Amino acid sequence: MDTKVYIDAIEKELSACCDEFFYAESSVTSAVRYSLLNAGKRIRAVLLFMTAEMCGKDWRKYLRLASAVEMIHCYSLIHDDLPCMDNDDMRRGKPSCHKAFGEATALLAGDALIGIGLETIANDKNISDNARIAAMKAITRAMGPMGMIYGQELDLEYEEKPADKEILNRIHRHKTGRMISLCGTLGCLDSHLTEQQKDALTLFFDNIGLVFQIVDDILDVEGDEAQLGKPVGSDAENNKSTFVTLYGLEQSKKIANDMTEQANNAIVNAFGEKSDSLIQYTAYLLNRRK
Amino acid sequence: MDTKVYIDAIEKELSACCDEFFYAESSVTSAVRYSLLNAGKRIRAVLLFMTAEMCGKDWRKYLRLASAVEMIHCYSLIHDDLPCMDNDDMRRGKPSCHKAFGEATALLAGDALIGIGLETIANDKNISDNARIAAMKAITRAMGPMGMIYGQELDLEYEEKPADKEILNRIHRHKTGRMISLCGTLGCLDSHLTEQQKDALTLFFDNIGLVFQIVDDILDVEGDEAQLGKPVGSDAENNKSTFVTLYGLEQSKKIANDMTEQANNAIVNAFGEKSDSLIQYTAYLLNRRK
Repeated sequence: MDTKVYIDAIEKELSACCDEFFYAESSVTSAVRYSLLNAGKRIRAVLLFMTAEMCGKDWRKYLRLASAVEMIHCYSLIHDDLPCMDNDDMRRGKPSCHKAFGEATALLAGDALIGIGLETIANDKNISDNARIAAMKAITRAMGPMGMIYGQELDLEYEEKPADKEILNRIHRHKTGRMISLCGTLGCLDSHLTEQQKDALTLFFDNIGLVFQIVDDILDVEGDEAQLGKPVGSDAENNKSTFVTLYGLEQSKKIANDMTEQANNAIVNAFGEKSDSLIQYTAYLLNRRK
Repeated sequence: MDTKVYIDAIEKELSACCDEFFYAESSVTSAVRYSLLNAGKRIRAVLLFMTAEMCGKDWRKYLRLASAVEMIHCYSLIHDDLPCMDNDDMRRGKPSCHKAFGEATALLAGDALIGIGLETIANDKNISDNARIAAMKAITRAMGPMGMIYGQELDLEYEEKPADKEILNRIHRHKTGRMISLCGTLGCLDSHLTEQQKDALTLFFDNIGLVFQIVDDILDVEGDEAQLGKPVGSDAENNKSTFVTLYGLEQSKKIANDMTEQANNAIVNAFGEKSDSLIQYTAYLLNRRK
């Protein structure tokens, strides 16, 4: 499985969006390009493209939708890194946006990414009008105060007090999970799926979203700083409740394995061999070292 | 002209949106309700409703669109008041959002308002699908990095150096003007206007948006603190370039008067007596003391 073609395409599309939606000479533009481009593993875009392909679609028609998801994800990282939030100086091995451009510009860069993320969808000519409206509903719900923002709020609240398993689950299902599940919802837009296929996709993405977070928690204990581009051990240092602190290292790995297997079984049963790429990709997500 | 019926209706609608789009027990919900409800003159909503009526529509069908505009406006005030931006402790006679709820919650409340503002439009059943897509395009453009955010960026840049007339104009046409012009665009959605009527609406809203800012600058010199709910003289204290510093008080008043007259002439010629309410409202905007 080679994801390079997807990643190259999304990088190119995001750069084109920056040219289209920003004034060239602005400092907000520079801050957005700095944080948005050539950044990260593009997991959300890859999941979206693979879902579209599994549904029998040309993944290239989903480039704008995937760009929108990556922009919203990027905004959430910029705002999350701000001093009043997680106060993180580094992101992906380089200074975080507010460290490089100042707080005010970083705040505006995040705000701008929300606007152009949605503008990208409103202007997406690759999908039907119905799909465009459905996409806007799905993305605003996933990013909003009953989605990701609620997760961020809970996360802040439980920085200062221990979370139990139910709360930890709720935090991650909102903070990370909703935006990952969104990739499933968007990837099957304009497809006519059976109820079994819809249920399988929902289960797959619910599980994969949580596994992603469990692996993050494991890497904060076992990971390599150079590979991760950020310090390890920060959770323990901050007395933060994580899957590792609540379940232990071995049990966390087992949960991640079991949930991945359950996710894969669901889509194999519903989509047959068309699910091959996604299944290979979940192995990568489970075993990633960064 | 009585705007009470519009204002009561928009307050009720915004409260209903808070019930619909937020988890009840969240601190972000409380912060949003604190900043969004029973707040301000609802100038944008009133302009939007009056435009819809001038176009022969039932203004009640535009309640959701007006709610979205008020939410986006409210987000911009919350983020603008943050310490890294204007660092304002007071807003409309009470502590600003971050003073009442802390910076992190205020940041998330602003982010949440963007999301639900756009979600409100994506789910607006009062307008056609085409109008929904057009509304989404218009609002994301107006609020984004080629609209309001660019104005905020310029405004920050010119806090520390003097702006000339051209720059001042550009700041205000983006920072305040785009979101006010948006009310004209949204108010005539689903209407079939002649080219003359479209041009008249554009000119009207371009002028009214700038007049709004000129009157703000005048009130910062001549206004009454108790009525305004904020200190006067802050522009002079901060050596900020304003219409009053660049044109003088009397000339600023003359410009505001002339631009209002030009705006009114345009819509009288294009819409006849249906423009009566908007014209009365511009007199209120010109002579407001808060």
